[in-house]
Amino acid sequence: MRVVVPFDGREPKTRLSPTLDREERHDFARLMLDDVIDTVRKVGYDPEVLANVPVDVDTRVAVDERPLTDAVNGVLDGCKGPVAVVMADLALATPAALKRLFDAGGDIVLAPGLGGGTNAFLTRDERFRVDYHGASVRDHREAARELDASLRTVDSFRLAVDVDEPADIPEVLLHGGGRSRRWLREAGFRLVTDDGRVDAVRGTEQS
Amino acid sequence: MRVVVPFDGREPKTRLSPTLDREERHDFARLMLDDVIDTVRKVGYDPEVLANVPVDVDTRVAVDERPLTDAVNGVLDGCKGPVAVVMADLALATPAALKRLFDAGGDIVLAPGLGGGTNAFLTRDERFRVDYHGASVRDHREAARELDASLRTVDSFRLAVDVDEPADIPEVLLHGGGRSRRWLREAGFRLVTDDGRVDAVRGTEQS
Repeated sequence: MRVVVPFDGREPKTRLSPTLDREERHDFARLMLDDVIDTVRKVGYDPEVLANVPVDVDTRVAVDERPLTDAVNGVLDGCKGPVAVVMADLALATPAALKRLFDAGGDIVLAPGLGGGTNAFLTRDERFRVDYHGASVRDHREAARELDASLRTVDSFRLAVDVDEPADIPEVLLHGGGRSRRWLREAGFRLVTDDGRVDAVRGTEQS
Repeated sequence: MRVVVPFDGREPKTRLSPTLDREERHDFARLMLDDVIDTVRKVGYDPEVLANVPVDVDTRVAVDERPLTDAVNGVLDGCKGPVAVVMADLALATPAALKRLFDAGGDIVLAPGLGGGTNAFLTRDERFRVDYHGASVRDHREAARELDASLRTVDSFRLAVDVDEPADIPEVLLHGGGRSRRWLREAGFRLVTDDGRVDAVRGTEQS
């Protein structure tokens, strides 16, 4: 099975701009990519990065400058056999969580993301194509039904949290591992708690 | 195994006040409770509600006016044998997701919530006590280590989303079932999509 990791190397993680400057967003996004590559390898697969600019990373890279949906469909167009697509910002993903996706039965397997996204999927049906706009997980469920393909969903918190917004940073601090979490800690992020969900703030003081 | 569902019947879901008035918050919280009770029953367990005010619900109710942490620890104090505690606002929970919790091995099993919460847990160690303040999932992991108890974590998106904030409402519309989702739709909520995560807005127009 091919495992493809799309990566925006041009202007990554713009929604983190309230808390990270441009260079930091590039650095952090790149470390999350490295973590995801490691995690895929630990499940026994050889990941391919699909990037919109050339990126120097320790695995095969295909460059496709088109938007995400077109680039992923370009991979699906040219592919015989099963393909999994795993987003590069799944900093909470573990080998066990990805293995649940890769090992799931069904023609099409979806891992929903927070806010209606499709953070990872696997297709064994060569007709399946993606559309990442809007509530993509709903649209992908519908697409599977229209193809009369069997659909499975992986119920995983670790695959549901993509790191897009400042509110996702505490999740990395709480549950993430590897380079991404270390980078955040070194950048001064720490957890602060009040009555609701935990936040992350940035500063040099210890919590 | 006892399955306890804590429920705030006094002032539920205050963080939903930007989008629901007080009476609506009571109604919606109560329907989520009913959904969770149904879901527990479908796994084959007989749920007990632990409420801070008397509540008229179709199952056993114990009233404990103390704050959540004290009330749950009161249950654990008086209990021999395994106990599971499942929050009443897990509107995305399915029987399959809860079954993963109930069937997991280990002395203590945690289902992390968004923002560091502990949305559900199971203990077979009679010494375990909870503290829901702050990043409780981190503190509960630490508590398990201090007891030298074996710890398991259930990696479930459906158990990770508790419905506390307006940003959680689209998750119910996308993935929830039962009364909670129906109520939201009848109250006029619908999904709106832009480039980021899906939002829910309220109004009478169809999306």
